[in-house]
Amino acid sequence: MALLSKRSAFIYNPILEEDDDAARLERRGIKVTKLNRGDPAYYFPTPKYMIDAYVDALRSGKTYYSDSIGVRELRDAVADRYGRTYRINASPDDVIATAGISEGLAFLNSALIDNGDRAVIFKPYYVQYVSNLMAYGGRPLFGIYDENEGWSIHLDHIRGELRKMKRASRIDRVKYMLITNPNNPTGTVLKRKVLEEVVDIANENGIVLVSDEIYDEIVYNGAKFTSVGQVAKGTPHIILHGASKVFDATGFRMGYMVFPEQDGKSKVIRDKIVDYARMRLSLNTPAEYALAEGISNRKEHDKAIHGMVSHIEKRVNRVTDILEHNDAVSVVRPNGAFYVLPRLKMSKLRIKDDGDFIKRVLQEEHIQITRGSGFGSPGHFRIVALAPEGELEEAVGRIEALLTRYMR
Amino acid sequence: MALLSKRSAFIYNPILEEDDDAARLERRGIKVTKLNRGDPAYYFPTPKYMIDAYVDALRSGKTYYSDSIGVRELRDAVADRYGRTYRINASPDDVIATAGISEGLAFLNSALIDNGDRAVIFKPYYVQYVSNLMAYGGRPLFGIYDENEGWSIHLDHIRGELRKMKRASRIDRVKYMLITNPNNPTGTVLKRKVLEEVVDIANENGIVLVSDEIYDEIVYNGAKFTSVGQVAKGTPHIILHGASKVFDATGFRMGYMVFPEQDGKSKVIRDKIVDYARMRLSLNTPAEYALAEGISNRKEHDKAIHGMVSHIEKRVNRVTDILEHNDAVSVVRPNGAFYVLPRLKMSKLRIKDDGDFIKRVLQEEHIQITRGSGFGSPGHFRIVALAPEGELEEAVGRIEALLTRYMR
Repeated sequence: MALLSKRSAFIYNPILEEDDDAARLERRGIKVTKLNRGDPAYYFPTPKYMIDAYVDALRSGKTYYSDSIGVRELRDAVADRYGRTYRINASPDDVIATAGISEGLAFLNSALIDNGDRAVIFKPYYVQYVSNLMAYGGRPLFGIYDENEGWSIHLDHIRGELRKMKRASRIDRVKYMLITNPNNPTGTVLKRKVLEEVVDIANENGIVLVSDEIYDEIVYNGAKFTSVGQVAKGTPHIILHGASKVFDATGFRMGYMVFPEQDGKSKVIRDKIVDYARMRLSLNTPAEYALAEGISNRKEHDKAIHGMVSHIEKRVNRVTDILEHNDAVSVVRPNGAFYVLPRLKMSKLRIKDDGDFIKRVLQEEHIQITRGSGFGSPGHFRIVALAPEGELEEAVGRIEALLTRYMR
Repeated sequence: MALLSKRSAFIYNPILEEDDDAARLERRGIKVTKLNRGDPAYYFPTPKYMIDAYVDALRSGKTYYSDSIGVRELRDAVADRYGRTYRINASPDDVIATAGISEGLAFLNSALIDNGDRAVIFKPYYVQYVSNLMAYGGRPLFGIYDENEGWSIHLDHIRGELRKMKRASRIDRVKYMLITNPNNPTGTVLKRKVLEEVVDIANENGIVLVSDEIYDEIVYNGAKFTSVGQVAKGTPHIILHGASKVFDATGFRMGYMVFPEQDGKSKVIRDKIVDYARMRLSLNTPAEYALAEGISNRKEHDKAIHGMVSHIEKRVNRVTDILEHNDAVSVVRPNGAFYVLPRLKMSKLRIKDDGDFIKRVLQEEHIQITRGSGFGSPGHFRIVALAPEGELEEAVGRIEALLTRYMR
C-alpha cells in the first residue's frame, strides 16, 4: 500500500526544481542569477498607491474574514475594469476572487473534472495547467501553439483532435478549453482573428472556454491584445486574471475569475465555485482592498503599468537580440508577458536535452532558468526577462557563450 | 454527461448556508446577529504589533513571491514556538506555511488519499474535514466524541472500528486519524491521558496522527491544553495551526503544518507537501512576516491572548448559563475554543430537526447560527460566543425564549 496518493505523482513544479541546487551554490558563497521566476514585484516595487490602500485596510481593522467570493469593493472594481476596458458586461456577482490563478484553476478542475475527463490544453503550457488537471483525474487533450507560426494556435490540429473525440462520442467529456493570452512561456499575444476561430471551435463542440489573461496589459512590440470576452459573446467562457503581473503584486496572492455570460452552463459552474470559495472561508482581506484600489485608481495604475511595460519591452528584446545571433538556438520574438522561449538546435549542440542544458547553465554559469520540457516543450528553455538590464544582458551573454562552447 | 464533477457534490459549507437568507433580511432593513462565523478578528482588533509588522513588510517592499513553504523568519518563529511552549523539537524545515488550515487539509488529502481510502474523523467534526476528504475520493471512518463524557473521545468505539478494518485487511487504507483539540464545534479540551491513548491507537494501527490545534491557547474554565506533539514522540504526526484564532488574524489567511518527527512516513509526506506548496508558488508574503512577528514577540502576544481569552471565557460561560436553564436543551460547558454546541431535546420541542430550528431562529429572531447536522451531529446547534457580551446575552436570551415558545 503506497503512502502517497496516485495523483501526487503529478504534483511537481519544474520552475522551482533547481531551487535546492541553487541554494547549495549560494551556501558556497556563489551568487546565482535567477531567471526562472516570473515575479515582477521582485524587480519593480509594487506601486505605492496600492501599498497605501493595503496599509489603510490594515490600520482600519479589516483583518477579519471577508465574504468568501471577495469583498464587494474588489468585485465592483473588477466588473468595472472589464466593462470599461473591454466592454464586457459583467456584474460584481459574476466575479469570484481567488488566491491567485492557482486557486482558480484548482476550483475549476475540482468542479468540472471526473476521472478520465479531458480538457484542451495547448503546448507549450504553463506547468500547473496539466499537473492540476491530472491531479483531479483529468487528462489533457493537447493542442499546439505552433512555433513556425509565431506560437499562434494551430487551429486545424485542434479541430482534428476534437473531431476525433466527436466521432468516438466522447466530446462531452471535454470539459473546457484553456488558452493563455498573452502566453507563458512563449510570450505570444493571440490575434483577434485567431480568438474568433477559437470561439467558433468552442461553440461547434459545446466546450466552455477558459482564458488565462493574467498578462493582458503587458503587451509591446506593436501587438494588440484582445480579451476572449470581446469575441465570445454568447459562448460560455471564464476569464482568469489577478494582481500578480499587471498590478505588480505577486506577493498579495490575489486573483479572480470572471463569468461574463448568463447561460446555464456558466451559472452552474459559477454557483459551484462559490461553494468552493465558501469551503475555504476567505482570502487575505486587506489584500483584497489593496487590489480593489489597484484596479480602481486608473490614473496611478496607467502610470505604473506603462513604466513597467516599457522596461519589459526593452529587456525581452535585448534577450532576444543576444540569442538571435547564436546559431545553436532559434527564437521567436515575444510581444507580450515577459518570457523568452528559445529552441535549442540539438543537432548542433553537444548536450543531451533541455534538462541537461539548464543544469549546465546553473552549474557552470550560476544562472537558474527553466527547461522547456517542464512546459511540455522539450528542446527549449525559458528565460524570465525581468532582471535589470545590465544584469540580464550579462547573464544572457554568458548563456550565449555557453551555447557556443557546447557547439559541435 | 453531467457538467459538474461527482466530487463537487461534497463541496458545501453549512456554516455559511444561511448567508443568502440573512442578506435578504438585511436588504429589508433588518439587523441580523451573526453567531455563525468563528471570526475573533471581527470582534477583537488584531494586535497592533502584528499590524505594525505587516505594514513594515509592505513598506519595505516585501510584496514578491516568498519561498513556497514560507519565509524563513516565519518558519523559525514557528519552530521556536513549539520548542519553547511544548518542548517539541521541530526545525524550520519541519514547518510548511499554508493558506490557513484549509489549505493544509487540502494538501494532506491530496497527498494521501486515493479513491476509497479512509481517514478517521470524529463526530461532531469541523465541516471541512469530511467534505475535503470526500472531494479527494476518501471516506471517513467515523469515531465519536462522546457527549455523555463531556465530548471526549470514545476510545473503545474507535478501537473497535479499527479492529474491524484490521480483520478485513484494510487497515493500511486508513491514511490518517484527525483530532481537533481544543474542539470545534464542541469547545472541549482533550485530557493528556486521552491523548496518550489516541497515540497508542495510532501506533497499534500504524496510522499517521493529525492534530488540528488552531485553538491551542484559547483554553479556560481551569482546563489545561496538551499538544499531541508532547505525547507522540516517536509516532508519525502532523500538527496544524495558524494565525486565525490564537493570533486573532483570520483575515491574514495564514496557517502552517508542523512535522516534528523524522521517521520515513513523516518525511515522505512532508516532502510531497513541499511539492504541493511549490505548485501554488507562494502565500501572501507580507502576512507571513506579520505572523512571524506575532509569534516571536512573546510579550505582546501574551498580553493580547490573555485579554482575549478572559473575554471569551466570560462569553462562553454566559451562553452556557442562559441555555442551561432551559429544559428543552442540554449543554456541555466548553473549556476551550469559542463555540457552544447545545443539544435540542427533540421530544420536548415542536420542531422537525436542527435545520428547521436554525431557520426559525433566523426568520423569527434574526440570529444566524449553524445546524449541528452540518458537523455530523444532528439535533444540535452551534453558537459562536464571540459577540460583545450585551449583544450576545440578548441574542441567546431570544434563542432561549424561542425554545420555550416551541416547547410541547
